[in-house]
Amino acid sequence: MTQRFSNLSRRQFLGGLASSALVVGAGGLFMPALGQDNLLDFRLGADPLLLHFNENSLGMSPMAIKAVQDVAVNAANRYPDNFVADLRETLGKRHGVPTEQVILGNGSTEVIQAIVTVAARMGAKVIEPDPTFGDVRRYAKAEGMQVIAVPVGGDFVTDIAALRAAAEATGGPLLINICNPNNPTGTIVDSTALFNWIDAAPDDHIFLLDEAYVDYAEQNPAFKSGLALVQAGRENVVVTRTFSKVYGMAGMRIGYGLAAPKTAKSVRRFSANFNLSATGSAAALASLKDEAYREASVASNARGRATLLETLDGLGLMHIESNTNFVLHRINSDVKPYQDRMMANGVRVGRRMTADEGWNRISIGTPDEMVEFTRVLRAFRERGWV
Amino acid sequence: MTQRFSNLSRRQFLGGLASSALVVGAGGLFMPALGQDNLLDFRLGADPLLLHFNENSLGMSPMAIKAVQDVAVNAANRYPDNFVADLRETLGKRHGVPTEQVILGNGSTEVIQAIVTVAARMGAKVIEPDPTFGDVRRYAKAEGMQVIAVPVGGDFVTDIAALRAAAEATGGPLLINICNPNNPTGTIVDSTALFNWIDAAPDDHIFLLDEAYVDYAEQNPAFKSGLALVQAGRENVVVTRTFSKVYGMAGMRIGYGLAAPKTAKSVRRFSANFNLSATGSAAALASLKDEAYREASVASNARGRATLLETLDGLGLMHIESNTNFVLHRINSDVKPYQDRMMANGVRVGRRMTADEGWNRISIGTPDEMVEFTRVLRAFRERGWV
Repeated sequence: MTQRFSNLSRRQFLGGLASSALVVGAGGLFMPALGQDNLLDFRLGADPLLLHFNENSLGMSPMAIKAVQDVAVNAANRYPDNFVADLRETLGKRHGVPTEQVILGNGSTEVIQAIVTVAARMGAKVIEPDPTFGDVRRYAKAEGMQVIAVPVGGDFVTDIAALRAAAEATGGPLLINICNPNNPTGTIVDSTALFNWIDAAPDDHIFLLDEAYVDYAEQNPAFKSGLALVQAGRENVVVTRTFSKVYGMAGMRIGYGLAAPKTAKSVRRFSANFNLSATGSAAALASLKDEAYREASVASNARGRATLLETLDGLGLMHIESNTNFVLHRINSDVKPYQDRMMANGVRVGRRMTADEGWNRISIGTPDEMVEFTRVLRAFRERGWV
Repeated sequence: MTQRFSNLSRRQFLGGLASSALVVGAGGLFMPALGQDNLLDFRLGADPLLLHFNENSLGMSPMAIKAVQDVAVNAANRYPDNFVADLRETLGKRHGVPTEQVILGNGSTEVIQAIVTVAARMGAKVIEPDPTFGDVRRYAKAEGMQVIAVPVGGDFVTDIAALRAAAEATGGPLLINICNPNNPTGTIVDSTALFNWIDAAPDDHIFLLDEAYVDYAEQNPAFKSGLALVQAGRENVVVTRTFSKVYGMAGMRIGYGLAAPKTAKSVRRFSANFNLSATGSAAALASLKDEAYREASVASNARGRATLLETLDGLGLMHIESNTNFVLHRINSDVKPYQDRMMANGVRVGRRMTADEGWNRISIGTPDEMVEFTRVLRAFRERGWV
């Protein structure tokens, strides 16, 4: 079975949600205009479950919270260069590369934007899987670049052989966008195939390896980060990472890229001046010192995911292997009514992200939130909705 | 007397300072390796005076501090779209333009970067006064754009007639960068001359009016914001503003642009996705509600500046009319030894920003800080250093 998918950016995704009629009741319940028969008794007045943006329901590390609160009082009025310099140095040490190889960004998306800008200056086209995270496509469109989308396989896994064939048929210069693990599928790539391709690729094939979900993927022995390629000095590879996921900092806007010195320099030229906040930098620094939080965050995600997968299996709802904090799974119905019914019951789930109906992306909240979500899902099954 | 000036970016400025040998003592005293005879007794162990980056020593509004502290606990892990949408709407209302005309930025510098990118796609050259704030030049350099620098007059005022003549001689497309009031001079432009020029300019002359210091400049009846041009629908004008100055939020990275709908849309295409943090957006929203803070901030600056100007006059040190939170003034000596002596005494002042020696830019701190700074300056005079 081969699937076709639509590509979307987070912004489009949010835009779609923002335009939904939305009422937040006293109990925090979201309730669009659906009939009473769509409401579950046990969800009336319940806390909302925000499982639509792959955020981290745990919140930030307590050390990060304290760091932000201190900055608010003591440093919010000063340009944040000291925090930023510390963060850059800390990240370089953590990843075994000199400081000059770290590209800080206002979220990894700003680094991605700068990479697209560099590629646009080279006259590059973009090659990427479909579906995938939509920011490269968004920035490429602004630059007027051609984007070649290569469908993932029927197993929802990014098809490296097909991407490579497309790249070789097209010829350089190219920006090859590999989100690994991929969003919204949750799958990792065949790292041997990817690394062999990169080894054989000409210099004007630039590989963007977006590793936003690396901390979750590392639990899978088959996952291999592109960091080793950067450490080995390959100038046509940029690895991007973020504090938005495992560190629960999506609202703080801190990400970074890792690349060879020459590449990092060319990307940084297109970063905005003073692109990190003092609050975000301080929170990131504190988070990096709180390894216990990171481990608890990964473990919490694994527990929540286990609860989810057990329920999906129990309901016979097919799911795609998740190496992330979300799961792409079958809902056996059109997405829109499913999403509306979930919202009526105070649950935000992903909107339609695949060309074919019947699939939904659900973010993994806390273990307790996933117990509650699976209770909702079972109730939906009882009513014949999934 | 005609002066020539060097142009610099904040980043270069910071880079220069970061590379200085710097020791922070128990009392917060910065002490590079200078002889004991350069130290003032009353500065030993004193609090440092950070008067080098045009920051706001007051810190943020108490309401903004509280907003940031709440976000750290409750919203730092969520994408900040609700805060950002509120901020955009609030700014539109405040400036009498529809929400679609507001371009939010990670500091006004990100808006400036996006404008430069748009101009680069048009094949534009840049025309700007010299000296001026260096971000346009930095971004233009990354884009490979030609920058035509037009010296300010002997009175340090941006020479609109000379800029206009240069623009007309060069022909479009052009990005014309007018920082008003200008940094590092503190002067405002002849608004009649500027507005007449804009009225007569062809569509492919894009005017960037950087109004980072507008709240201070508004105290001068001769200052005229470019906002009226945006409100009137002119599509070749973008006004930029920031929360870094009067609101004391330099570390929070929130700025914005105001432009006609079509222009705003084209600029926003080159903004990074999710470019504002939850902390910064919440702080900005809270600041806009705290008009008493804004008024106190402007008044505090006026008091500190009065103390400074009185001392400069008393010492016979020439100063340039300040419409900002800094003053460009004579020091009657080379900048480097002056800067080093100031740093040895725990005072950070501007580095050299003019081609000719003998001038320094000093930021206005709190009134108490300016009393202390002027005490230092008088002590310097006693020793024959200024």
